[in-house]
Amino acid sequence: MPTDWYRNLTNSGVGGAITARAGLPRVPVLRRYEPGQPLLAGPALVGAVGKGALVDATRALLTESGATVVDAAGEEKLAAVVLDATGARTIADLAAAQAILTPAVRELGPSGRLLLLGPEPDETDAEAAAVAQALEGLVRSAGKEVRAGATANLLVVASEAVPAAVDSSVRFFLSARSAYVDGQVVHVGVPVGPPVDPAGMDAPVDRVRPLAGRIAVVTGAARGIGAAIVDTLARDGASIVAVDIPAAGEALATVANRTGGTALQLDITSDDAPRRLLDHLRERHGGVDIVVHNAGITRDKLLANMDADRWNAVLAVNLAAQLRINDALLTGTGVLRDTGRIICVASTSGIAGNRGQTNYAASKAGVIGMVRALAPRFAERGATINAIAPGFIETEMTAKMPLGTREAGRRINSLRQGGLPVDVAETVGWLGQAESGGVNGQAVRVCGQSILGA
Amino acid sequence: MPTDWYRNLTNSGVGGAITARAGLPRVPVLRRYEPGQPLLAGPALVGAVGKGALVDATRALLTESGATVVDAAGEEKLAAVVLDATGARTIADLAAAQAILTPAVRELGPSGRLLLLGPEPDETDAEAAAVAQALEGLVRSAGKEVRAGATANLLVVASEAVPAAVDSSVRFFLSARSAYVDGQVVHVGVPVGPPVDPAGMDAPVDRVRPLAGRIAVVTGAARGIGAAIVDTLARDGASIVAVDIPAAGEALATVANRTGGTALQLDITSDDAPRRLLDHLRERHGGVDIVVHNAGITRDKLLANMDADRWNAVLAVNLAAQLRINDALLTGTGVLRDTGRIICVASTSGIAGNRGQTNYAASKAGVIGMVRALAPRFAERGATINAIAPGFIETEMTAKMPLGTREAGRRINSLRQGGLPVDVAETVGWLGQAESGGVNGQAVRVCGQSILGA
Repeated sequence: MPTDWYRNLTNSGVGGAITARAGLPRVPVLRRYEPGQPLLAGPALVGAVGKGALVDATRALLTESGATVVDAAGEEKLAAVVLDATGARTIADLAAAQAILTPAVRELGPSGRLLLLGPEPDETDAEAAAVAQALEGLVRSAGKEVRAGATANLLVVASEAVPAAVDSSVRFFLSARSAYVDGQVVHVGVPVGPPVDPAGMDAPVDRVRPLAGRIAVVTGAARGIGAAIVDTLARDGASIVAVDIPAAGEALATVANRTGGTALQLDITSDDAPRRLLDHLRERHGGVDIVVHNAGITRDKLLANMDADRWNAVLAVNLAAQLRINDALLTGTGVLRDTGRIICVASTSGIAGNRGQTNYAASKAGVIGMVRALAPRFAERGATINAIAPGFIETEMTAKMPLGTREAGRRINSLRQGGLPVDVAETVGWLGQAESGGVNGQAVRVCGQSILGA
Repeated sequence: MPTDWYRNLTNSGVGGAITARAGLPRVPVLRRYEPGQPLLAGPALVGAVGKGALVDATRALLTESGATVVDAAGEEKLAAVVLDATGARTIADLAAAQAILTPAVRELGPSGRLLLLGPEPDETDAEAAAVAQALEGLVRSAGKEVRAGATANLLVVASEAVPAAVDSSVRFFLSARSAYVDGQVVHVGVPVGPPVDPAGMDAPVDRVRPLAGRIAVVTGAARGIGAAIVDTLARDGASIVAVDIPAAGEALATVANRTGGTALQLDITSDDAPRRLLDHLRERHGGVDIVVHNAGITRDKLLANMDADRWNAVLAVNLAAQLRINDALLTGTGVLRDTGRIICVASTSGIAGNRGQTNYAASKAGVIGMVRALAPRFAERGATINAIAPGFIETEMTAKMPLGTREAGRRINSLRQGGLPVDVAETVGWLGQAESGGVNGQAVRVCGQSILGA
């Protein structure tokens, strides 16, 4: 992984003093998750616009997690500010939100969390729909203002969603697991699958190993982001099936072995790949709970100079293979278990486009379109499918970039640094939980609120 | 209006030679619309993936406009490349699109137009849905590659839309009127209102004065973008009602008089503003065809330092006033005429968020949410409502920016320059046409494909 010399410099004793005196911005060191770590490193302020349907549940969640809940900032900097704005319907409600947020964000500490809960827009009431959307503009602007590694995100909560359905998402966005997820808007609806027994959802979840008992298959697992996903899901308790091409055999075995998982050498673009994968999962593991479509390639070239080989190779690996495996998961029986979670790695290039990447961007946009189309079909089976769009992540690939390109990529986001493979992996872990059934058909960026977008 | 010295330098004789030798990028001079100008300055290549439901209509449109249609690039650079990909459903179709586009974009000339026509995603077919979305990634990447003022855009056409419904949009995106509209995805559906008589739609339209006979009201009309909208709509044949606050009276009168329109001094945030505006339109003009909600203010401040006055002032002007006037237009009778067109000026800040602009971004995001919610209600009356989100536009406001901020704002888009007020105004003109009834509930950016987004 390439070293971010500038970040290290601004955080060293002498270097920090020099760069500060020169007026150069400090790159914050982000709080990242470690097993056993408390949810928050300090107190949380919880407020509401109007009644606040989720306020009590949020306070209970925080208290259960050992966090102190306060109504106003005190001596200690706030680790989190949570505003339940699900009841916001009028422009006056927006003003009420601002009145709560202004003094609170002033006291937000390092790696702090600004988390808004907003309503799904009521399309029958223009003011309410406008206000729901206005919260996006507010949160995305606030994300560009908060400092020292703090993030700002918005959960849009369906009115029918019970508080327990929002729990895993609130927990993720408040925790250090979401270190590099910033400026995002994620919809949380009624969980897929049969109605959940509230008693069951209130039952203690293993917070240290939230994926205990779950089988996870990860493609492109031999290195980079794929290997980090393997390590992170295993740390959270999942049993791993690590998949990569035969040429990556040795690295693949290393990754699989260190997590106690199994390795499967498979070219996912081969005709029989879906059948071989599903047979393996059925026969060796009795099924699968989490499928992470991570394998992807780039073959950059300007469109004017593109050739069919580059185009077809990228579309085959990044999109066609996912389509065929997903189809097999939907039509095959006895493989995808209840509370199945499909997670597809897309890219911010698929959202914003990128010079030299018409093929890659087309494939990754395609993944987002596929996820949206398949979400209702997986929901019928109690499963979800979501996309994750990483921005600039520090990998072997970015290490090979020219220095200028790499430096620009690192700095043009609200956190002023590249993300780490583990940041993508933690997001996979959240979406992979059985408790995350309220999130379906979404594309979540892991990009530190990159300025790049559409 | 501030001068773009750098653009002028790179386009001057000596300065251009020096900057070119220094390896500095040239900032293209964009072809802009002038009455009587041919639609295209050179030949157009028209291709199709599969059958191409819109190919014949596109060729006819081009021929009628005096353009030469070719099947392959020849001696002369192409002024436009149009690909009808509405039939694209498979990954093989995407490869066919690439095979057509690669040799074509190589020959695209200055201020060229790459225009793709794509299908609405078929959500029952995951591959087709993926392919529909993939076209977005392709177009947005291509927009970042094409040079010399060329643009790339995608019209997503509903399968039920007859070719004539797409006509005004194809024409706009090919013409010099869309000089600064780049990297956009616009949906075109069945036109709102009673079924259109195809014979009537094929009847000759006044191409030089497409808004002839239409009454247009423009708020914030005294200067900047508002004044440009007035001038442009009047040039296209509309009768103008120019609205601004009483304090802008003199400038307002000047703008109104030079177009032969009338001026209305009105504080749009006052309680009786909707009634007064509608009374004026009903009594003095017999109704209105085009309503342009352009009035807007900024009161920048970090959220941590925000005060209620700044917050409320921005929300009142930018959002609440629009909501109240739109409500009056919907509920009042005898004012909004058939083929009414409501056009709301939003901002890229409402999409991406902006530091120091939580209030402004909330208001402009709110406009986009309002537009989406009101679109079906206006459609019931044969009317449409759309938002335009300008990016960096050269105005008195941007002239007051610090040099560094202004230079950055100008260059971080695919056209490497700020837009002009007229670029926003031309987009208003397109949406204001009676023939643009297939575009409803959309947010169209006028930003030169700014890299800023969400």
